[in-house]
Amino acid sequence: MNTAHTPALSQDSSTARPLGVAAIGYAFMGKAHSNAWRNVASFFDVPAFEQKVLVGRDATQVAEAAAKYGWAESATDWREVIERDDIHVIDICAPGWMHAEIAVAALEAGKHVLVEKPLANTLAEAELMTAAAAKARARGVQSMIGFNYRRVPALALARELIVEGRLGTVRHVRAAYLQDWLSDAESPMTWRLRKETAGSGALGDIASHAIDQVLFLLGDAVTEVTGRLQTFVDHRPGEAGLEEVTVDDAAWATLTLTSGAIASVEVSRVATGQKNSLKLEIYGDKGTILFDLEALNELGFLDATVPVREQGFRRILVNEPEHPYLEAWWPQGHIIGWEHTFTHQVRDFLLAIQDGTQPSPSFEEGLNVQHVLAAIEESAAAKSSLIQLSSTTEGA
Amino acid sequence: MNTAHTPALSQDSSTARPLGVAAIGYAFMGKAHSNAWRNVASFFDVPAFEQKVLVGRDATQVAEAAAKYGWAESATDWREVIERDDIHVIDICAPGWMHAEIAVAALEAGKHVLVEKPLANTLAEAELMTAAAAKARARGVQSMIGFNYRRVPALALARELIVEGRLGTVRHVRAAYLQDWLSDAESPMTWRLRKETAGSGALGDIASHAIDQVLFLLGDAVTEVTGRLQTFVDHRPGEAGLEEVTVDDAAWATLTLTSGAIASVEVSRVATGQKNSLKLEIYGDKGTILFDLEALNELGFLDATVPVREQGFRRILVNEPEHPYLEAWWPQGHIIGWEHTFTHQVRDFLLAIQDGTQPSPSFEEGLNVQHVLAAIEESAAAKSSLIQLSSTTEGA
Amino acid sequence: MNTAHTPALSQDSSTARPLGVAAIGYAFMGKAHSNAWRNVASFFDVPAFEQKVLVGRDATQVAEAAAKYGWAESATDWREVIERDDIHVIDICAPGWMHAEIAVAALEAGKHVLVEKPLANTLAEAELMTAAAAKARARGVQSMIGFNYRRVPALALARELIVEGRLGTVRHVRAAYLQDWLSDAESPMTWRLRKETAGSGALGDIASHAIDQVLFLLGDAVTEVTGRLQTFVDHRPGEAGLEEVTVDDAAWATLTLTSGAIASVEVSRVATGQKNSLKLEIYGDKGTILFDLEALNELGFLDATVPVREQGFRRILVNEPEHPYLEAWWPQGHIIGWEHTFTHQVRDFLLAIQDGTQPSPSFEEGLNVQHVLAAIEESAAAKSSLIQLSSTTEGA
Amino acid sequence: MNTAHTPALSQDSSTARPLGVAAIGYAFMGKAHSNAWRNVASFFDVPAFEQKVLVGRDATQVAEAAAKYGWAESATDWREVIERDDIHVIDICAPGWMHAEIAVAALEAGKHVLVEKPLANTLAEAELMTAAAAKARARGVQSMIGFNYRRVPALALARELIVEGRLGTVRHVRAAYLQDWLSDAESPMTWRLRKETAGSGALGDIASHAIDQVLFLLGDAVTEVTGRLQTFVDHRPGEAGLEEVTVDDAAWATLTLTSGAIASVEVSRVATGQKNSLKLEIYGDKGTILFDLEALNELGFLDATVPVREQGFRRILVNEPEHPYLEAWWPQGHIIGWEHTFTHQVRDFLLAIQDGTQPSPSFEEGLNVQHVLAAIEESAAAKSSLIQLSSTTEGA
Repeated sequence: MNTAHTPALSQDSSTARPLGVAAIGYAFMGKAHSNAWRNVASFFDVPAFEQKVLVGRDATQVAEAAAKYGWAESATDWREVIERDDIHVIDICAPGWMHAEIAVAALEAGKHVLVEKPLANTLAEAELMTAAAAKARARGVQSMIGFNYRRVPALALARELIVEGRLGTVRHVRAAYLQDWLSDAESPMTWRLRKETAGSGALGDIASHAIDQVLFLLGDAVTEVTGRLQTFVDHRPGEAGLEEVTVDDAAWATLTLTSGAIASVEVSRVATGQKNSLKLEIYGDKGTILFDLEALNELGFLDATVPVREQGFRRILVNEPEHPYLEAWWPQGHIIGWEHTFTHQVRDFLLAIQDGTQPSPSFEEGLNVQHVLAAIEESAAAKSSLIQLSSTTEGA
Repeated sequence: MNTAHTPALSQDSSTARPLGVAAIGYAFMGKAHSNAWRNVASFFDVPAFEQKVLVGRDATQVAEAAAKYGWAESATDWREVIERDDIHVIDICAPGWMHAEIAVAALEAGKHVLVEKPLANTLAEAELMTAAAAKARARGVQSMIGFNYRRVPALALARELIVEGRLGTVRHVRAAYLQDWLSDAESPMTWRLRKETAGSGALGDIASHAIDQVLFLLGDAVTEVTGRLQTFVDHRPGEAGLEEVTVDDAAWATLTLTSGAIASVEVSRVATGQKNSLKLEIYGDKGTILFDLEALNELGFLDATVPVREQGFRRILVNEPEHPYLEAWWPQGHIIGWEHTFTHQVRDFLLAIQDGTQPSPSFEEGLNVQHVLAAIEESAAAKSSLIQLSSTTEGA
Repeated sequence: MNTAHTPALSQDSSTARPLGVAAIGYAFMGKAHSNAWRNVASFFDVPAFEQKVLVGRDATQVAEAAAKYGWAESATDWREVIERDDIHVIDICAPGWMHAEIAVAALEAGKHVLVEKPLANTLAEAELMTAAAAKARARGVQSMIGFNYRRVPALALARELIVEGRLGTVRHVRAAYLQDWLSDAESPMTWRLRKETAGSGALGDIASHAIDQVLFLLGDAVTEVTGRLQTFVDHRPGEAGLEEVTVDDAAWATLTLTSGAIASVEVSRVATGQKNSLKLEIYGDKGTILFDLEALNELGFLDATVPVREQGFRRILVNEPEHPYLEAWWPQGHIIGWEHTFTHQVRDFLLAIQDGTQPSPSFEEGLNVQHVLAAIEESAAAKSSLIQLSSTTEGA
Repeated sequence: MNTAHTPALSQDSSTARPLGVAAIGYAFMGKAHSNAWRNVASFFDVPAFEQKVLVGRDATQVAEAAAKYGWAESATDWREVIERDDIHVIDICAPGWMHAEIAVAALEAGKHVLVEKPLANTLAEAELMTAAAAKARARGVQSMIGFNYRRVPALALARELIVEGRLGTVRHVRAAYLQDWLSDAESPMTWRLRKETAGSGALGDIASHAIDQVLFLLGDAVTEVTGRLQTFVDHRPGEAGLEEVTVDDAAWATLTLTSGAIASVEVSRVATGQKNSLKLEIYGDKGTILFDLEALNELGFLDATVPVREQGFRRILVNEPEHPYLEAWWPQGHIIGWEHTFTHQVRDFLLAIQDGTQPSPSFEEGLNVQHVLAAIEESAAAKSSLIQLSSTTEGA
């Protein structure tokens, strides 16, 4: 690594040249991240940056995507891009199996890195990345994993209320992430349904979000887990006839947290009628919080310290200037959408770069989630027996 | 009137002989009232009474109904029944056009009277009844009109909160009562759709409930109204071909209250999909209350004095021992049904008789609602012009 | 056993003498069952019966309760009562540890028996009772266990829809029963919190209902389970200082069904803000059903066979004459309460006696639930390992 | 007017030079419109255009806003801007009293015009604008009024369902728009609360949206109205002490439509707890539609042609590729926000320009709404008497 490429990157906003940003990938996540980069400065005070390069394998397609999504240029070789002096930030939206190689190279090249979840397809890769992030951090190079739901204003508010003690002692959590896009048994085979390409099914894809929320909201770590995995549709039509599905359609787990709280986690991609429903219920001795991603502008909150006669779950429309991130957007009651969480993520990432602080969630936090996922698989393979996590996985 | 029939009827519960009760009518309302009499003493401490006689026109049917609904005897002549020395309470569930004659006779005979709403089909009759009630009251004979929704625990709680000032100054109210049993244009002609038998349509039938709630919850009186009436299905199949519908399918009104608050009232029997939805929204400067009869165990409450960050409509499940009437029933969260409101009504009526106090709502309160209904009709006939009520109609 | 006491008891409704009914117990469940007996004949056509005797230990209190709840007499010795020739039906609302002795004696005496859930406190007792029920059945003596939620109209409708194939193949079920009456850590020690008197905590008390619903709705049986139990508040104030709580506050399980479906079950008595929330979600490949006991007049239903453009969860207000049990009550939209499920239960029990058929759920069905509960405890004791059920437990 | 400035502007997308766009105003609406221009081409196929100039009165502030919101330049004189040859589209986000002058000038200069609602502060101005739009249209110059809620996907779907006859004959509509930002009586005096600057209060501001929806969804026109206006807080703190509020806080109206349907309209800015709640209920004889802007990704739909047993209000999550506008955004269940309606509006406006067709809603449609608002004020001034509209106001 050429240290000339790694100046101290924390930004003095008054004098610094704009950060040059490159994004790798232009599919679903690339589109969502690009949208965040294109809009963040219209709403938030962030350090100056430029949407420099969008990287993809197909030169024509990536050029079109770059034009459409607001990038100045396109490129097909990510290695060249991370060597460029005018690029300071790498946003990795490529498939999971590419994360480790790109992230490690980018960090070594002194680039700040934002990587989509999951951190990697294997624990080994995730550990490599975390080590690279730790080394880079020591040189002022920041890294962050894209658990964007931490930036849903309602969930950020939930976290505030929990930190303030409004729930008292949390006893148990019900976390579920329910989708139905695999409900139709005739829905065809894809790479997402093969273990070798996808790692796992609903577990890695959506349980990761649910587990990250448990760790984030409680600020806690997992000490032991039980797990079950199930594939309900075990063969699906492929190009050459029926093919075996080798990942889970649904997963169940219980997590013990260091506090003594227990979280149940249930995820499914065959929950007919549930489109994108991350449901969270946090039960404390002084209050309870409810959330559903399909109505992400709302937070349910019950304050058990008010007189019983007038207790009840409140539907807080999290759209007030007093709420996290909301002052930047529109007047009260003008709801925001799913994509805004990525804008908030980019905003917080840029501010951390400017301040020279570790953005959250860190690669370590991403690795913690991976450890929990691995333990769930281990438990599932061992008749759902309770598995101890070797090192506890600490939350934010 | 033989004064021998009218002893002081307030009850000393320790020594009094049981009150003899007779009910007149055994259709829908007769069934609901009978259910209340049959069950009230199993849940509430009330003065002793006996379900003596059920009265109806058809001797066979009323005998069957009496056996089914828990009455000791049946009879066909209400005049004989109100003369009986062992009858102290007359519960009038007969059609509206019979209310005045029965009620006045019963009150003059020194019987306590509970009469179903509406008080009468005409203002003249209602005034006659109110005068009789006033005279009887002076002799310790009580009377009450059956606006049973005042005994929905959630609405009783709403009233408490308003009295305690939790809503601050109420600015406006949205009251609606929506049903759909006339939505089908092929639904046949009945006596309820003829002005000469029913008086009016949705207006008298369900707007009366909505208006009573406005008066009850706000403890206020109406000074002026606007009104519109509409018949959407103006002919319906009768026994001899299409017949003209001469009452309203829907009605709209605004009411000015002495406090300066304004209530809108909208009722319909062609609101497809709404089964029995009395909706109330009360907007004050310190809080708001929401209610829907289809979920009558719940009250919506927003307390605008808590910090904006955590404000929201609470869904209070009104099923706690702390809530009106609920201690008598089941543990928390075990919801009650529509019929229970009649049980509460009978309980409160019996307690008022025991205490020698005026039960609420009085005939005067019933008359107030009739005045408002009449003014709405008058306004509707005068191109919806604002109509002043000659004497204000005071709430509870 | 004196066979003179066991005539063929199926009823010819035209000529039969009324069934004599005795109930044992007058606390919460006794009150609810009494209410059902007092009202069932006012709404449903059932064979003639008489509320003869209410049995309890305290002579004064049971006499008062009998008068209040509509029983002709009271008694303190249940053994004498079951020997009476004029008693044909025994309704057992006594605590769980008394079930076996009373039920076996009553069945042997030729009395039809309705017993509250759980069937018994131990598997051994439950098996004894089931054997007695089988023997009695051969002589025309019926028995039934009181899983009253099978008689919630919305759940009866759910069962109909599933039987008709409206959900297609059910993949997974989410069942939860959440309450909060133990949420306060200062809530005192009671017999319900000691293993020796209560058997278990939330598991036996409320998971039993949730599991019965899974078996009932799917018409299926459990082949294997995993389980976890947790006591969050392990000491509570007793009369002589802090005492140890020896039952669970919350439990988690997964059930494998013979069809291959998987059900998750989660129950808690410390779920702050949840009062009596039995939540059911049934996911099939053609549709989904949602239910919450706190809004028991409603059923959520998504029909995945309608065009995607107009798919959505329907809130069916289960209050139409077309719905199970509803024609007997009130017009559409006039909701019923929790207690009505007991009235439906008694109605179905009486009709089965009249027809000489086995009422459902049978003691065998109650035993099946006990087997599942026992297996969950076994799994919980074995680090949550998957436990095979020796004999499958078949549903209705 | 120099005709050299008005070439036929319909676009041949393959060869045309990009449309030059200028926006006037950079406050709330300017920010929302800018956001739409900045993002529309990233999601939709639209003719090429450039965000050329943002116009405002304060040179420094408008320059900052231009940089922030993606405009190439800023300017302070809108007259100069509309004369520029490289500007083809004028987007008017300036206050209502400026609409007429700018719009007429821009149309005469051959520029396509998008104007925020309301069309103008007075009927006279609105008529002038409509005449100018008609003349311009004849020359291929398009104009559109920004009733953006027509582009809420759920409401566009509602319109489709109604056109397809899914509601049958619509009998009545309940439209309400409830906000609470004036609920606090200490909230200070502003230009929005003075008749001379704002024209009216809640009536013009939010009833206009509600009325436009009635006309749009039913495709109908208003023949007569009743109206009431009320100011609950008649003085508010100004810079020099209490000032009189001269506009309405709330308004009520009923509208008769040519079809015979009746719509009630109720709006308030003092409805405590309601943040931005445009509620629509459309009752037909075959079905019903419900909508609330605070949950704008959802549509309530009841299909009364399915068997009663399974009827119920569906919550359609309007987030499927099959739904209007949605294919362009994210996968199912990833909800969009309020601002997206402006993006849809700009997309449809650009496509109409490209196709040389009249975009909807036209200035005529905006004028129709103004006529209804004026009639409501006239009725309110005449004791709420029913007012005939001289010419019917036809919907889309």
